[in-house]
Amino acid sequence: MIEEKIASLNLSLPSPPKPAGSYIPVVQTGNLVFVSGQIPVRDNKVEFQGKVPTDVSVERAQEAAKLCVINILAQLKSEIKSLDKISRIICLSGFVNSAPDFADHPKIINSASDLLYEIFGEIGRHSRISVGVSSLPLNSTVEIDLVVEVSRP
Amino acid sequence: MIEEKIASLNLSLPSPPKPAGSYIPVVQTGNLVFVSGQIPVRDNKVEFQGKVPTDVSVERAQEAAKLCVINILAQLKSEIKSLDKISRIICLSGFVNSAPDFADHPKIINSASDLLYEIFGEIGRHSRISVGVSSLPLNSTVEIDLVVEVSRP
Amino acid sequence: MIEEKIASLNLSLPSPPKPAGSYIPVVQTGNLVFVSGQIPVRDNKVEFQGKVPTDVSVERAQEAAKLCVINILAQLKSEIKSLDKISRIICLSGFVNSAPDFADHPKIINSASDLLYEIFGEIGRHSRISVGVSSLPLNSTVEIDLVVEVSRP
Repeated sequence: MIEEKIASLNLSLPSPPKPAGSYIPVVQTGNLVFVSGQIPVRDNKVEFQGKVPTDVSVERAQEAAKLCVINILAQLKSEIKSLDKISRIICLSGFVNSAPDFADHPKIINSASDLLYEIFGEIGRHSRISVGVSSLPLNSTVEIDLVVEVSRP
Repeated sequence: MIEEKIASLNLSLPSPPKPAGSYIPVVQTGNLVFVSGQIPVRDNKVEFQGKVPTDVSVERAQEAAKLCVINILAQLKSEIKSLDKISRIICLSGFVNSAPDFADHPKIINSASDLLYEIFGEIGRHSRISVGVSSLPLNSTVEIDLVVEVSRP
Repeated sequence: MIEEKIASLNLSLPSPPKPAGSYIPVVQTGNLVFVSGQIPVRDNKVEFQGKVPTDVSVERAQEAAKLCVINILAQLKSEIKSLDKISRIICLSGFVNSAPDFADHPKIINSASDLLYEIFGEIGRHSRISVGVSSLPLNSTVEIDLVVEVSRP
């Protein structure tokens, strides 16, 4: 059902990106599932690099944030098999690679939050932090991690 | 009881600030409650803006951190109705908008931690991270999020 | 058993460092244990200070990240008494004090992730975020926090 919703938005889940380090993408404890920070990788290449707004516009950074969400969902699907097991999106952390005087982080991370709401509806509404950071792995423009709740099998 | 304690400190809980984006302020899973990152907003205006120590002194930033805690408690009250349901403060993340050579983040975030201890006593003692970031939403001086444990209804 | 493993790696757990502020190092809720952000302190002194790569090389920062893990384990042991109670490492957040153009954060935080895997084996594999920040408490080079799952007593 969730995957049909994703398809109806003209989106599709890629093979999940390989971690950029010696950790794993998804860990479950009880009915909480932690997803490692995802960066805007597509086809093994970081598609959005540099700082907002100097290297990358707010609009492009919004695309980057959406791509992070797509990668998060791809990681989740790979691990828990069906996204329909998700009973609630709990919290999202959004890190924006930004110039020191940037202040519009919510606009960027909103595109991630909005996409989760579009896909999951009410259970997609989540708590959130968004902050600006001075640099990110592989010069990514955005990094997003997520905690979700799943119904126990 | 907790609200009496808050009043005895000459503090009061405002109407909870509206999220600066498309997410919600509080999400509960099991007996854990996640509160979205709060910024030093009062009466719909960001009262503390800019970086420590260049734009904002450590003392003012401490006030900002306390205001974030007040807003967190306002959000919690609005969602779980009574702060007396809180059985433990679990963890706090404090992000300080700071100049690259700033090193006194604990002094600032301590004012948030101290306030939680004053209000909640022993169950207010929590784990914590505090980091310096290069920018924050709406040029806020501090952003703080919190996870608390509630007794099940 | 875990402590024997630590000894076999020629490492030892120090007395846990005192928090650099008014919070506590470890909080448990249910079978989740949250460890406060640890910095590269040894014998009450911050051993690794400054930014990567300008003040501190990647190699030195990797040592700093390992020291953070050692301090995390020392904090955990002090609180839960035996590290053998840990049933899973859940998630690690790694904050690297870095120059604005730094992009190799995973290399640094990998040394922390690798060490956890060496010590704990399969249950040491965890989810992770790693980000670059513009400053850290006491000018530390790295700050790392951890969430672990313990078997209930």
